[in-house]
Amino acid sequence: MIIVLKRDATKADADGILADIERLGLTPLHMPGVERVVLGALGDERVLADLNLASHPAVESVKPILTPYKLVGRELHPHDSIVHIGGIPVGGRGFVTFVGHAANDAAESFASAIDTVQKNGAKILVVSRTNDRYSPYARGAQATDFAAALRLLAQNTRLPLVAEVQGIDEFEQWGSTLSGVHVSGHHMQDYALLRGLGQWRKPVILSRGSAASVEEFLMSAEAILAAGNPDVVLCESGIRTFETATRRTLDLSAVAWIKSQSHLPVVVDPIRASGRRELVVPLARAAAAAGADGVWVDVHRDPRTAHRDDRPALSPGEFSRLMGELRPFVEAAGRTL
Amino acid sequence: MIIVLKRDATKADADGILADIERLGLTPLHMPGVERVVLGALGDERVLADLNLASHPAVESVKPILTPYKLVGRELHPHDSIVHIGGIPVGGRGFVTFVGHAANDAAESFASAIDTVQKNGAKILVVSRTNDRYSPYARGAQATDFAAALRLLAQNTRLPLVAEVQGIDEFEQWGSTLSGVHVSGHHMQDYALLRGLGQWRKPVILSRGSAASVEEFLMSAEAILAAGNPDVVLCESGIRTFETATRRTLDLSAVAWIKSQSHLPVVVDPIRASGRRELVVPLARAAAAAGADGVWVDVHRDPRTAHRDDRPALSPGEFSRLMGELRPFVEAAGRTL
Amino acid sequence: MIIVLKRDATKADADGILADIERLGLTPLHMPGVERVVLGALGDERVLADLNLASHPAVESVKPILTPYKLVGRELHPHDSIVHIGGIPVGGRGFVTFVGHAANDAAESFASAIDTVQKNGAKILVVSRTNDRYSPYARGAQATDFAAALRLLAQNTRLPLVAEVQGIDEFEQWGSTLSGVHVSGHHMQDYALLRGLGQWRKPVILSRGSAASVEEFLMSAEAILAAGNPDVVLCESGIRTFETATRRTLDLSAVAWIKSQSHLPVVVDPIRASGRRELVVPLARAAAAAGADGVWVDVHRDPRTAHRDDRPALSPGEFSRLMGELRPFVEAAGRTL
Amino acid sequence: MIIVLKRDATKADADGILADIERLGLTPLHMPGVERVVLGALGDERVLADLNLASHPAVESVKPILTPYKLVGRELHPHDSIVHIGGIPVGGRGFVTFVGHAANDAAESFASAIDTVQKNGAKILVVSRTNDRYSPYARGAQATDFAAALRLLAQNTRLPLVAEVQGIDEFEQWGSTLSGVHVSGHHMQDYALLRGLGQWRKPVILSRGSAASVEEFLMSAEAILAAGNPDVVLCESGIRTFETATRRTLDLSAVAWIKSQSHLPVVVDPIRASGRRELVVPLARAAAAAGADGVWVDVHRDPRTAHRDDRPALSPGEFSRLMGELRPFVEAAGRTL
Repeated sequence: MIIVLKRDATKADADGILADIERLGLTPLHMPGVERVVLGALGDERVLADLNLASHPAVESVKPILTPYKLVGRELHPHDSIVHIGGIPVGGRGFVTFVGHAANDAAESFASAIDTVQKNGAKILVVSRTNDRYSPYARGAQATDFAAALRLLAQNTRLPLVAEVQGIDEFEQWGSTLSGVHVSGHHMQDYALLRGLGQWRKPVILSRGSAASVEEFLMSAEAILAAGNPDVVLCESGIRTFETATRRTLDLSAVAWIKSQSHLPVVVDPIRASGRRELVVPLARAAAAAGADGVWVDVHRDPRTAHRDDRPALSPGEFSRLMGELRPFVEAAGRTL
Repeated sequence: MIIVLKRDATKADADGILADIERLGLTPLHMPGVERVVLGALGDERVLADLNLASHPAVESVKPILTPYKLVGRELHPHDSIVHIGGIPVGGRGFVTFVGHAANDAAESFASAIDTVQKNGAKILVVSRTNDRYSPYARGAQATDFAAALRLLAQNTRLPLVAEVQGIDEFEQWGSTLSGVHVSGHHMQDYALLRGLGQWRKPVILSRGSAASVEEFLMSAEAILAAGNPDVVLCESGIRTFETATRRTLDLSAVAWIKSQSHLPVVVDPIRASGRRELVVPLARAAAAAGADGVWVDVHRDPRTAHRDDRPALSPGEFSRLMGELRPFVEAAGRTL
Repeated sequence: MIIVLKRDATKADADGILADIERLGLTPLHMPGVERVVLGALGDERVLADLNLASHPAVESVKPILTPYKLVGRELHPHDSIVHIGGIPVGGRGFVTFVGHAANDAAESFASAIDTVQKNGAKILVVSRTNDRYSPYARGAQATDFAAALRLLAQNTRLPLVAEVQGIDEFEQWGSTLSGVHVSGHHMQDYALLRGLGQWRKPVILSRGSAASVEEFLMSAEAILAAGNPDVVLCESGIRTFETATRRTLDLSAVAWIKSQSHLPVVVDPIRASGRRELVVPLARAAAAAGADGVWVDVHRDPRTAHRDDRPALSPGEFSRLMGELRPFVEAAGRTL
Repeated sequence: MIIVLKRDATKADADGILADIERLGLTPLHMPGVERVVLGALGDERVLADLNLASHPAVESVKPILTPYKLVGRELHPHDSIVHIGGIPVGGRGFVTFVGHAANDAAESFASAIDTVQKNGAKILVVSRTNDRYSPYARGAQATDFAAALRLLAQNTRLPLVAEVQGIDEFEQWGSTLSGVHVSGHHMQDYALLRGLGQWRKPVILSRGSAASVEEFLMSAEAILAAGNPDVVLCESGIRTFETATRRTLDLSAVAWIKSQSHLPVVVDPIRASGRRELVVPLARAAAAAGADGVWVDVHRDPRTAHRDDRPALSPGEFSRLMGELRPFVEAAGRTL
């Protein structure tokens, strides 16, 4: 870590900080420059958090040298991680298709379509809450019995079941029926939840918040690993930008960048990102080409009646066509669908 | 509402939609154009949510004519609302200073400084969680006993006490000691929480999410009002943009715009927005000049030891100076501090 | 076009606007609603620009129904356009590789490497200015003799030559040696330049500005077509967002969306977008998978000495490897490299 | 400057870079760490641009310690600069009102209104091109005789006249009639133009590009000063963000931040930023409160007929009212209007 002192910092300021650095077991460095005195601390920068140097009155700025994440990074763990969700390996040679469904949205109707969807390539079912309908006047905005919907779906499918969790207490309620949990982008920085998931130890699909940087995304994953759970799958689902032609902007650069920096599997959600049915095929293909380990697509038995204002779902037939159109690109990436 | 049909939509498509509009009690309109057929629905557009027209296969786009919010808008409620928090009117002639403090951050130490802060002009105390420290390695990141910190502060201050809530069950735990609750930007679109706050009926300070549009912000407030609670204070605390010189970009255009569109009080949080101690005075002044009804500033007895990575707190002395530097601008706005 | 009147608009206001609409040859519509009077104008909305309705004191908002672009859209021109640049078809079955080079950057050295690059698959050479080095202290920031560099390159390559233009007067200076011109994102909305290029009628590669929406991008292309030149190739090179892990955010959703809305060819510039050498391969692959018609990559004989602060160039060897790694994805898209 | 080497960098790599640093007259530093070797260079970092270290194959990242701008910063020039435009001091005790007008927009009609506007407080007249009308179908989009419009206005006003320039050759054409020039946000990073303005030495009003960071903005100003012209006034006119309620997001945090970092005067353009007539008064007040040295507002004799699609102009009467509503805030800031 590099610590740039203010122009008017005194020798005593510098000496005090250097002593603190040494006390914490790091190697202190003193670099008196022409315009500024610069200090350095060599070693594990994480322990410096305790010094809170950014708030020190003599400090102008603090520049970390190393990435703030360790456990999710490739440096100490160069090989790709494989996360097993209900027996399905994510992050290996297979390109995995997650099918999403909102719990309150005609679960019984969807249950009857699951078989077809599974036959056409779906590997994991992810059940969401209904809380991305942002109006008190929206249809279906009222709370529904999420646990009941989960039970119904669990009885009707052999697909591994993943459900969105929003609080630690929910683990106990539904945990036993689940092969994994989903943390939505809205809850990506809920550190109490992340620590809880670290201890609970079922696989976690962690979605990127629409205003979260890649570094913040990886730090949230780091929190789950640091709390004891190595089984995290990252999900890119678009970031908020000035562009309004699409619901959000799908950040495939981030997918490629994360794959180069982290050993964790990464999947892509083209529907939440684009909000447009006609872009699902090209963006799913692009995700496979950029190095993603899977895609997540919402499926509904009758999308016309789906309770969702601003993003579509695919019909079982559209899902089947997507699988066909995706296959050549998955194979070009040396993987199987 | 204007409904633009696709180029290949049939007369039967148009007739079906027009019949649906009529059935819901709105006036249907048929506008056959050169390139497209356009339909209209005159009346309360909120009931059209049930038709889910955006998902209709013959519909190209749906354009609402009216703002989606009614209860928070000035049309039906032209005069400024005044929200009383523990007897303090927010939104009236007085410009109100909210002092923020993180619960886990030396509550006992802060308690001894509250008297001074109150004498210097603080009107309301807002106690936050610690969850905007986004690293598993951050000091103070572990959970603390929020209820205990609240009790301690309640015993040591006569200021009205507002606390951050993240879930409905928390109302019962701490509700009795509070004059109001705070919903952070992270939870701005948690509609289950918003509905709960609508029923609980204590005043709510609702912060804008850093990736939330003004319309989404107002719709979240609308959800609280729609559930029965008229006492909402909006808080602008910056949006995420490409600019990195400041932590976020303070959106004072939004403050001025909201004041023109909504009768609800609006306050501004210059510290969360800018992340820079040296910008608190000019931005608090600018907030008063833009029409805000108050400011929120975090205060800490000894900011050097504060548990916060990326945003500062003011010392009691700095807070006192802020009040002095703010006063001429509050008075220029025809208000009192 | 839908015109929403203000709450206090009078019947005379409405009548005046309806008369204006009729006078311009469109069909006027009167839709008196419960809360607002809404007017409509059916026909070619472009002629309404003259009415300047957004500035009318009785008008609250104006909502266009149709896309503002006609010539670049697929409605009147459903089939893909093919633009020939120096005999190379862009937008057809071949996936085209554009190689970029900055004029002041060792043109003589690069000239000796062109043959190799061409053998490895480069189809078109694009020569840029040096003006994306944003510091007065940057090496190579001084102006160089662009015309001389162009002549030198023209003598040393059989690749079709495209050069960046920044002003109309430049056409005459260099026009004769060129197979096409490039308009950088900085000049994307220079309408005087766009009109000039419409008249000059050599093929134009138009890059998206880093703060330009897709609609603004397409309107700039529309301006070239409206001035008489149908030969435009669009180039996506990233937009500015809050994410800092990459130089910009590559917007492949925009590529897929534009391909669905416009018949013009679209190419992708993964280096300007990401600023990272290690992301060129995955992003070029993703571009091919998303439906792009080609990629643009900057090549330099010795990238270590390249005069560019914030984005890399590939060496001829890296370029050759890129072609190999791209091929399976181009073929999966049913195209040839 | 701090240079972090890659994990696999050799001692020879480090030694080579250290020798280069020494050769350029800076003090080299060697900091071998646990995970990485870090090098330092103490002294004037600007000369290191020649080493192009970011492209060095053994270098992972380069972190500057000092701000990249020197001439515009307060370190070497702590006191506020005052720039005189046609005798009007900008940056001193007076808060200066710039009145903008588009050249092609009824210059003769505007000429007759200038006297009134001047009496009501306008200090400087800025004449713009018409090129922020982004459609080939927009009224008034065709080129007009800018020089003729300038002459007409010059004959009809005693206000100092500033005109937008887009190219170096224009200085000669109109230079003699002007008290200063304006560089629009579109041209903010046209370094050839900036260097030319450095040599021409008339005062320059430099607008921030809507996608430019504060640092890029200051580096553009630095380029003018570095080329010999100290008379630069900065103009904040909003940045592009995801928010669509306003045309752009006015960044008053940037104004306050720039005032703390730079000695140059800063003015604010609330109309280009917000695009909304009703926000001009609150945002102009907020600008004065945030520390701005003036405001720029476009005025038109009859705004209803103005040739501008997406941003309004004030009428002379509205301008007069703005001055009245602004005065108390200018005086609260200890300045005069």
